[in-house]
Amino acid sequence: MNDSRLRIGIVGLGRLGRRHAQNLAQRVPSAELVAACSPVAEELAWAKDALGVSNLHAEYAALLAEPAVEAVFLITPTSLHPEHILQALQAGKHVFCEKPLALDLAECRRVEAEAAKHPRLKVMIGYGRRFDPSYSDAYDKIRAGLIGKPFLVRSQNLDMNDASGFFVRFAPTSGGIFLDCTVHDIDLARWFLGAPRPLRVFAAGTVAVHDGLREFGDVDNGVAICEFEGGKLACFCASRTMAHGHETATEIFGTQGRLAIGANPRLNRVEISDAHGVRNECTPTFYERFEEAFLRETMDFVQAVQDDRPPALTLNDATEATRIALALRESLQTRRAVEL
Amino acid sequence: MNDSRLRIGIVGLGRLGRRHAQNLAQRVPSAELVAACSPVAEELAWAKDALGVSNLHAEYAALLAEPAVEAVFLITPTSLHPEHILQALQAGKHVFCEKPLALDLAECRRVEAEAAKHPRLKVMIGYGRRFDPSYSDAYDKIRAGLIGKPFLVRSQNLDMNDASGFFVRFAPTSGGIFLDCTVHDIDLARWFLGAPRPLRVFAAGTVAVHDGLREFGDVDNGVAICEFEGGKLACFCASRTMAHGHETATEIFGTQGRLAIGANPRLNRVEISDAHGVRNECTPTFYERFEEAFLRETMDFVQAVQDDRPPALTLNDATEATRIALALRESLQTRRAVEL
Amino acid sequence: MNDSRLRIGIVGLGRLGRRHAQNLAQRVPSAELVAACSPVAEELAWAKDALGVSNLHAEYAALLAEPAVEAVFLITPTSLHPEHILQALQAGKHVFCEKPLALDLAECRRVEAEAAKHPRLKVMIGYGRRFDPSYSDAYDKIRAGLIGKPFLVRSQNLDMNDASGFFVRFAPTSGGIFLDCTVHDIDLARWFLGAPRPLRVFAAGTVAVHDGLREFGDVDNGVAICEFEGGKLACFCASRTMAHGHETATEIFGTQGRLAIGANPRLNRVEISDAHGVRNECTPTFYERFEEAFLRETMDFVQAVQDDRPPALTLNDATEATRIALALRESLQTRRAVEL
Amino acid sequence: MNDSRLRIGIVGLGRLGRRHAQNLAQRVPSAELVAACSPVAEELAWAKDALGVSNLHAEYAALLAEPAVEAVFLITPTSLHPEHILQALQAGKHVFCEKPLALDLAECRRVEAEAAKHPRLKVMIGYGRRFDPSYSDAYDKIRAGLIGKPFLVRSQNLDMNDASGFFVRFAPTSGGIFLDCTVHDIDLARWFLGAPRPLRVFAAGTVAVHDGLREFGDVDNGVAICEFEGGKLACFCASRTMAHGHETATEIFGTQGRLAIGANPRLNRVEISDAHGVRNECTPTFYERFEEAFLRETMDFVQAVQDDRPPALTLNDATEATRIALALRESLQTRRAVEL
Repeated sequence: MNDSRLRIGIVGLGRLGRRHAQNLAQRVPSAELVAACSPVAEELAWAKDALGVSNLHAEYAALLAEPAVEAVFLITPTSLHPEHILQALQAGKHVFCEKPLALDLAECRRVEAEAAKHPRLKVMIGYGRRFDPSYSDAYDKIRAGLIGKPFLVRSQNLDMNDASGFFVRFAPTSGGIFLDCTVHDIDLARWFLGAPRPLRVFAAGTVAVHDGLREFGDVDNGVAICEFEGGKLACFCASRTMAHGHETATEIFGTQGRLAIGANPRLNRVEISDAHGVRNECTPTFYERFEEAFLRETMDFVQAVQDDRPPALTLNDATEATRIALALRESLQTRRAVEL
Repeated sequence: MNDSRLRIGIVGLGRLGRRHAQNLAQRVPSAELVAACSPVAEELAWAKDALGVSNLHAEYAALLAEPAVEAVFLITPTSLHPEHILQALQAGKHVFCEKPLALDLAECRRVEAEAAKHPRLKVMIGYGRRFDPSYSDAYDKIRAGLIGKPFLVRSQNLDMNDASGFFVRFAPTSGGIFLDCTVHDIDLARWFLGAPRPLRVFAAGTVAVHDGLREFGDVDNGVAICEFEGGKLACFCASRTMAHGHETATEIFGTQGRLAIGANPRLNRVEISDAHGVRNECTPTFYERFEEAFLRETMDFVQAVQDDRPPALTLNDATEATRIALALRESLQTRRAVEL
Repeated sequence: MNDSRLRIGIVGLGRLGRRHAQNLAQRVPSAELVAACSPVAEELAWAKDALGVSNLHAEYAALLAEPAVEAVFLITPTSLHPEHILQALQAGKHVFCEKPLALDLAECRRVEAEAAKHPRLKVMIGYGRRFDPSYSDAYDKIRAGLIGKPFLVRSQNLDMNDASGFFVRFAPTSGGIFLDCTVHDIDLARWFLGAPRPLRVFAAGTVAVHDGLREFGDVDNGVAICEFEGGKLACFCASRTMAHGHETATEIFGTQGRLAIGANPRLNRVEISDAHGVRNECTPTFYERFEEAFLRETMDFVQAVQDDRPPALTLNDATEATRIALALRESLQTRRAVEL
Repeated sequence: MNDSRLRIGIVGLGRLGRRHAQNLAQRVPSAELVAACSPVAEELAWAKDALGVSNLHAEYAALLAEPAVEAVFLITPTSLHPEHILQALQAGKHVFCEKPLALDLAECRRVEAEAAKHPRLKVMIGYGRRFDPSYSDAYDKIRAGLIGKPFLVRSQNLDMNDASGFFVRFAPTSGGIFLDCTVHDIDLARWFLGAPRPLRVFAAGTVAVHDGLREFGDVDNGVAICEFEGGKLACFCASRTMAHGHETATEIFGTQGRLAIGANPRLNRVEISDAHGVRNECTPTFYERFEEAFLRETMDFVQAVQDDRPPALTLNDATEATRIALALRESLQTRRAVEL
C-alpha cells in the first residue's frame, strides 16, 4: 500500500511549517514526508527527532536535487514564494505553497507562465478556508440551490490583538492588512460568487491600536467593498486588534436565503454560565480554527497529484486574490475607488 | 370609554405588589386601580403619590367593604391567600391572587368549594409564565401540531444566588423549594401535556450553599420526576444558587420535534466579545424575565371578567400544582417515590 | 395627576401612525392623545372608536389651530415632513416627526433654521433604534468604557422580501435604499462614535430580485463605507430581499472589545428542534423588533417637553443622517468615492 | 521510530469497528493494526484491501494466538465482552473494549477479578465522551475551580429516531435504554462529580413511538435521578425518538457557576437564514459528534500501554456505570426508588 505514497519535501519549518510537517508525516496516509529544508538547525533536528524525516537540508537547491522528492510544500516567507515555485517546477516537482502567491502582480504572472510550461505538474496555493468542513458545506449547499442565486458575500478576518506587536515588525514585508488577511476573504468571495470579473474596489482603514503601522502606510483595521460584473458584490473587514480571539466569518446572501459561517468563533461546545453571563471561549488563532482545513487541503492536493487531476484552486485564483488585494491597498492609500 | 373599566383594589404593595399596581394603574387600559391595602404606611403613600390611588386602607376588610371595588388583586404572603380569597368571594369580588394558591391541600379544596358557590365571580391564581409571549407561542405551536404529540416536559426554575440569604429566612413559610419554585414548572408541564392525571413522583435535593436550610428540611437545589397517566412524563429542576441570573427554561418533547423556551436567559439582544469570550448578560430575576407576562396575565384576567368568560387557569389547576408540589416535598423527605 | 399630561395631536394614521396613536392613547401615562388628523375618514373613525380621540380633522391646519394641542406627532410621508414641521413650529407646537427629516439637504437646513427661532419648542426626529433597550444598553456600556475606545461601527438594516413589490411602487418617493433604510444605521454609527465629522463615503449596490427598481436608479441590496475624522469608520449593509425576516444588527468595535446587537433576529425565546435542525423564528418586520423602542422614544420625547430639556436627538443629528445618506446615493450612482 | 508502535488486533468490523480500524491503521502514529478478526468474510477483505491488514482471522482464538499482537480492540456485541476480555487477559494481551463492560454485575466482577491477576496488562472500557475535546475542556475547567464545587450533573443522550426500528430488534440484547444509552451519562456524572458512592435511583419512561419495545419492558424515552453520597446528584434523560439528530448534552452545576456541553448539537459552523428562520443542522448520529473522541481515546489507551501507566478509566468505573444503569432499569420496572 505504502508504495504509492507521494514523497514530499517540506520547505520552511516555522510555526505553520511544523504543523504542515506533522500532518504530512502522521495524518495523511497517502503521503510520505521524506525531506525537510530549513536554514535553522534546530528545526531540522526537530523534523528528524519528532517526525523521523531522514533527508535534511539547509539549502533549498539541495532538497530540489533529491530525485525521491516528488512534491514540495513551501511554507516560506511570501517574498520567496515566486522564485521557489519557479525552481521547483523547473526541477519537475509538484508544488503546494502557502498563500499568498506573491505581493506583486508581475510575479504572479511569471509563476503562471512557468506553470503553463509544465502542464503535468500540479501547483496549488493554500487558500485553506475552502477546505474547512463548514466552508465546504456552505459551498455545497449553495451549489445545490439552497439560497437561490448568491449575489453578496460579506467576509471578515479578525485576529486577536498581539500585544507583542509581531505584525508591526512584519509590516514591511506583509504587504499590508489586505494582502495578508483579506486575501482569504477575497478568495472566498470569488469562490462563492463563481469567480466573476472584478470591476472596482474601495477601501478604508484606521490605526486603532498599533501606531507603529503608520510608517508603513498600513492599518490595523480595515473595511472594503468590491464590485464584480453581473451585479455581484463583496464587503470585507479585517482587524488585528480583537480582544476575544480569531474570528473568520463569512455570509453569503442569495435570492432565497443567507448562509453564515463562523458567526460565533466558539472554541468548542462548552458554554459557561457564571458572573460574566452566558459565554463561550473563542479560537485564539486561525490555527485552532482551521486545523482540520489544513489537513484536508493537504489531502486534497496529494490526491490531485495522485489522480492527475487539477487541484481545487488554480494558480489564476491566487493571482486574482492578489490583484484585488493590491487594488484594496491602492484604494486605502489614494482614498479613491480603484477600477480594475 | 373609561366607564367600562374594571375597578380594582390591590392588596399587598411589596416589591411584586408594586409592579402589579403600576401595571394596573398605567398599562392596562381596561382597568382602573381605585384602592390599595397595605399595613405599611409608606407603601400606601407611594400608591397615592406615584399612581394617584385615592382609596387607601390599612385593613383588608375596609377595602372589601368598598362597593366601588369590583375585583381584588392579592399580592400577599401565601399563608394569607386562602382566607383572603374566601373573604373576597363572600364580599362579591372577583379575585386575582399570586401563586401558589396555598401550601396545604385542604385549604385549596376549601377555596375551590367556596368559589363553586359564586359561579359568577372569576378567580385566577397567577401562574404567569403561561402568559409570557414565548411560552404562549410554544403552546400555540404545540396545539397546531408542530411537534406531534407531546409526551415529556423538562422544566426548570433556576434563581441567582442571593448572598443575603433571603430565602433562608423565608424558608419557614415558603413551603420549600418545590412549593415555592417548581410549582411554576408543574403548572407548565400540566399545561403543555393537557392536564393529565399525575400518578407518581420522586424528588431529590441537596444543600449546596445555604446550610441554614437544613433545619427546615429544605434544599437549595432539587430535581424531580413526575409520571402522569398515558405515558406522559415531567422532569423538574430547581436551584437557588446560580451565578449567572434567573433562568426559567422548559423543553417539550413531542413525537415530531422538540420545543425549548428560554435555553439562554439572555437579558437582551446585546452580545459582548472581549477577554471573557463571546457572552451575553442574563435576566437577574424572574421579574426582568417575565415583566411582559405579568402585564399580559393581568390584561387577560381583566378581559375574562369583562367578557364573563372563565379565566385562562382554573382554580383546580392551582390545586393540582400544589398537590404535586406537596408530593415532591414528601418524596424529598421520605426518599421514596410517592403515589398520587 | 392627569392635569399635567402633555396634550398631543397625531397626524397620519397609516400602519405606523396607528401604532404611535395606540401608544400615545394607552401606554404613555404622561401623554393624552386629544386630536388626530388624516385625510382618510376610516382612519379617523378608528381613532375615535378604538382610542376615544375626540377631535378629528381632515386638514392639518385645523389640527394646528386647536389651542389644546401642545405637541404634534407627524407620521406622514417624508415629502411632507419639512413643511409640516415648519407650520407646527409657527403654530407654537412641539414636534415629534418620523424619520427621515427630509430627502433634501436644503430642506433640512430650512427646518433647522426655523427651529432655531423657537428655542422653547422641542423638535425630535424619530430615530427610534436609539431607544431600543438593547441599543441603549450597548450605548451605556460603551460610555462606561467596556470596549475601550470605539472606532468602527458595522450596521445593517435587512428587510424581509415583500413579494408584493411595495417598495418598488414606493421607490419614486423613498429616496432610495440608503435614504430609506441605511439612514438608521448612519444615525447609529454617529451616535456610537460620538458624532464625528464625516469625510468620505463609497457605496455600491445591486438589484438582486426587484428589476422594477432599475428605472429609479435604486437597488434592493447595498453596501457602503463611511470614513469619519479621527480614524473612525462605518460600514453599512441594506437589503430588501431577505427570506427570514427583518434583521437590524449593529456591531461596535472598540480597542478593548466588541459589542453586537441583534446578531440573530430571534422573534422570542422559543427554539425548535425538528427535521429542519435547531432553529428560531425571526421578527418579520421592524415593528415587531422595535415595538418597545417606539414606546420608549415617545415617552422620552414627552418627558423632554415636560422637563423643558433638549430631546435625545438634535435636529442636526437628523440633518447629518440625511447628508450622509445623500452622499451614499451619489456614490452609488457615480461609482466614485464622494467627499463630504 | 516505527519499531516502538503498539501492535494491535481488532475484533469486530461492524460499522463502529470499521471506524476504530481506520483510526488504528491511519491516524494513530504510535499504533500498528496488524490483525483483524470477524466472522464476516467481506469485512476481513475490506480490512485487507482498504487498510492493508495482513493477518485475518475468522476465529477470535486464532487472533489471540498471534504472538505479534500485543493488544486487542473488542468492538463486539456486549454479550461477548466479558468472555472476550477474560480470554485476552489470559493470552497476555492488553484490552480496549467498547462500552458497556457487561449487562450483568456478576460478569463485571468476574472481569475485574481476572484483570487483578494481570496487573501489567491494561484494560479500558471505551467511555469515549471523556475524550471529546469539549468534555475534557469542561473537566479541566472544573478541576481548576472555575465553577466552584460541582454538585449536580444533568446529562442526556438523545438519538435521532430510526424509522427502521433497528433498536426494537436490538432490544432483546441491548439491556434497555438505560444500559445502552444512559450508561454514558452515568459515567460522565461519576467523572465530573469525583466518583461518589451512589445511594439511590429512580427512573421512569414511556413508549412514545416504538410500541414494539413494550414486550421487552423497554421504553424509547426515559428520565432518571441518581443520588450520591455527600449531597451529589445526577439527573438523566434518554431518547430514541428525536427529529433533529443526535444530541448528547451535559450540564455541571457548581457552587460558583455552571458548564454546559453540547447545548446545541450543531453539525458545524454554518447557519442558515431562510423561510424556516435562523437554523443550523445537527449531528445525525453519535459518530459525527464524537469522531474526534474515538480517535483520542484510542491514542490515550495506546499511550497508557506504552508508558505503562493506568488507563484514564478503571475497570471499576465501567462496573459502576453498569451497576447504576441496572438499578435504573429495575426502578423503571418496579416503579419504586432503588437503594444501592
